[in-house]
Order: sequence, then structure tokens, then C-alpha cells
Amino acid sequence: MKESIGAKTFLYPCPAVGVATYDADGKANVMTVAWAGVVNGNPASLSISVRKETYTYGNLMAKKAFTVNIPSQKYLEQLDYFGKTSGRDTDKFAETDLTPVRSELVDAPYIKEFPVNIECKVIKAEDLGLHTIFIAEIVDVKVDDDCLDEYHLPLTKKINPIAYIPGDGTYYALGEALLVRKRN
Amino acid sequence: MKESIGAKTFLYPCPAVGVATYDADGKANVMTVAWAGVVNGNPASLSISVRKETYTYGNLMAKKAFTVNIPSQKYLEQLDYFGKTSGRDTDKFAETDLTPVRSELVDAPYIKEFPVNIECKVIKAEDLGLHTIFIAEIVDVKVDDDCLDEYHLPLTKKINPIAYIPGDGTYYALGEALLVRKRN
Repeated sequence: MKESIGAKTFLYPCPAVGVATYDADGKANVMTVAWAGVVNGNPASLSISVRKETYTYGNLMAKKAFTVNIPSQKYLEQLDYFGKTSGRDTDKFAETDLTPVRSELVDAPYIKEFPVNIECKVIKAEDLGLHTIFIAEIVDVKVDDDCLDEYHLPLTKKINPIAYIPGDGTYYALGEALLVRKRN
Repeated sequence: MKESIGAKTFLYPCPAVGVATYDADGKANVMTVAWAGVVNGNPASLSISVRKETYTYGNLMAKKAFTVNIPSQKYLEQLDYFGKTSGRDTDKFAETDLTPVRSELVDAPYIKEFPVNIECKVIKAEDLGLHTIFIAEIVDVKVDDDCLDEYHLPLTKKINPIAYIPGDGTYYALGEALLVRKRN
């Protein structure tokens, strides 16, 4: 039997990533985002959704740029911390001993220690209610070279990303590979 | 060392879901979608991105409604099949022995056998290039009652969703729970 549980954001699974930006003074900030997804294959684009109250929101509006940083599982504690504090009061990079690296392509920092960094340029922002969606073109993706195979394709098990399940509010590991759909 | 791999859609992980629609004759169709994400908390909304050539695209434009159906791992073969054929030539529900149930809330069918069904009303469609993003309000979520706990919260391990990793083109299982961020 189906049970109706109301209008909830129960998409399974969501990515759990760190979105990094600069503020007006050039201070690097980072927040946890699970409301993110690929939105276009060509030009390669993704979206993130952010509440207007966040420090990141102002940075995104001013700089029109951000990076999406995919953590390995060993950075879960830091990732979770990014979502519990505001960049208004804290230097989250200093607090977590992570290193912001200035992107040469967009006006945003990326997280050196996270294995995948996606550099993004905001194409449009749209207020949807509680959240504003930022649709952004992917300018480049940088991957730690020990997370790439001999064909320069990513080794997902080495990247070891984190999933977020809105339904139970829990971070999960990625499990075993089930089926190859296509090779890149 | 970081290696640049170009502008690719490498967000990890993406959801792997079945998006179901009706065509003009009321025939139920379903396609595989990984370009999907939550975009707003209030009103609860998600987006899917679809190529204009797909049969689903025309259905979405005409009906302004769809459902997102989260498969259990045991339906992986069917989910993968949905992405390899077109509803123009095939009745994918008949081919996979799955049951389309008419939603009472939106003009779209949902998949009875999949444990989570998210009923969505399209708010806006925007052409981004290869894909068009459909931003939609979630009207209701239906869950198999054996996948809910005594507080009517979803049991993620019973739902047993599938993740898609664009980087290696592979479907994955969800792994172990790592950390509870918040209870709903």
C-alpha cells in the first residue's frame, strides 16, 4: 500500500558537496549544499539552490562564480561543519585546516584537499521561494591525479563521494558498482 | 596534483530515477533521468532536465506534469531499459511489466512497483542548450508503507535507491549510513 507523506523534498540520493565563493573582501567561504544537480549536458551546466539568508548567497550574487567541491568520505566532518556555521562570523577554511586555492578561470576558490573541484560561472539566478536556484556553466573540472585512471577517467571508489538522503537527514557512503551504463 | 579534465558534468552522486508522463493519447511513458535535483525547500520543488528529442519532452510541454519514481535496486534492469528505448515506438510499461497508476493530483502516471513516487507540477521550462530544465513543484510524495517507520519516516535501506555517477557512467548502490545531519 502507498502512503501519502505530503509535499516533501524526498529525492534519493542527493550529492553532498562544498560550494566555495569569495566575499567582497576576498575572504574564501564554503557552505554545504545538497540541493544541487546537473541541468544540462551541452554546455555542461549544473545548478545549486541556496537560501537568501546565507553568506554564500551574497557572494554568488556579487561574484557570479563558485566552485562545487566533492569531498571524500574522510572529509565528512568538515563538510558537515560547513553547513552548521556562517561565513559571516567564521573563517571556515581556517577552522577546518582546508586550503582555498584561487581558481584561474572563475572568481572563486576551490578546496585543494577535496578530490574533485568543479569551477562554475553563474548564468542565471532565480528566486523560487525559500531557495534561489543558480544555474551555472561548468568551466572546468579538476581532479586529483591519483583519482584518475590511465585514460584520465575518474576512479569513483578513490574519490569516495558522499550522498545525502533528505528523507532521513543522513549522509551515506556510496555502495558497490551495479551496472555500467556507458563509458565516457 | 590536480589534473584538469575539461568542462564535464561530474557531479557525484546523481539520483537515478524514472520520470513518468502521459502522451496526448493518454499512453503512459517513462524515461531514465539522472539530471535531477532538489531546487527549493518551500514550496518543495525539484528539477529534471530532458533533451528536446525525447518523447517525454513533448509530454512535459503538453501536460505540465510528471512523476519522479525512485526505484529499488531490484528494478535496476527496468530503470536502465527506460533510458535505451523511446516511448514513440514502445510501451515501456508493458515491456517491463510495471504498472502505471493515474495520479489523482497531477496529469501523470506513477510507477506502482517503485517504492517512492513524487508527483510534480511544472512551474517553468527553460531551454539551456542540449537539455531543457523543468522546474516543478512537488505536490505529494507517496511511499510504500513497508518502507516507512512508525513515525512515517522513510526507511532508506528498504527503499534501497540507485545512484548514478556521470564520471564513470555507472549505477551504484547506496552504501552505509555515515552521520545523521538532522531528523525531519
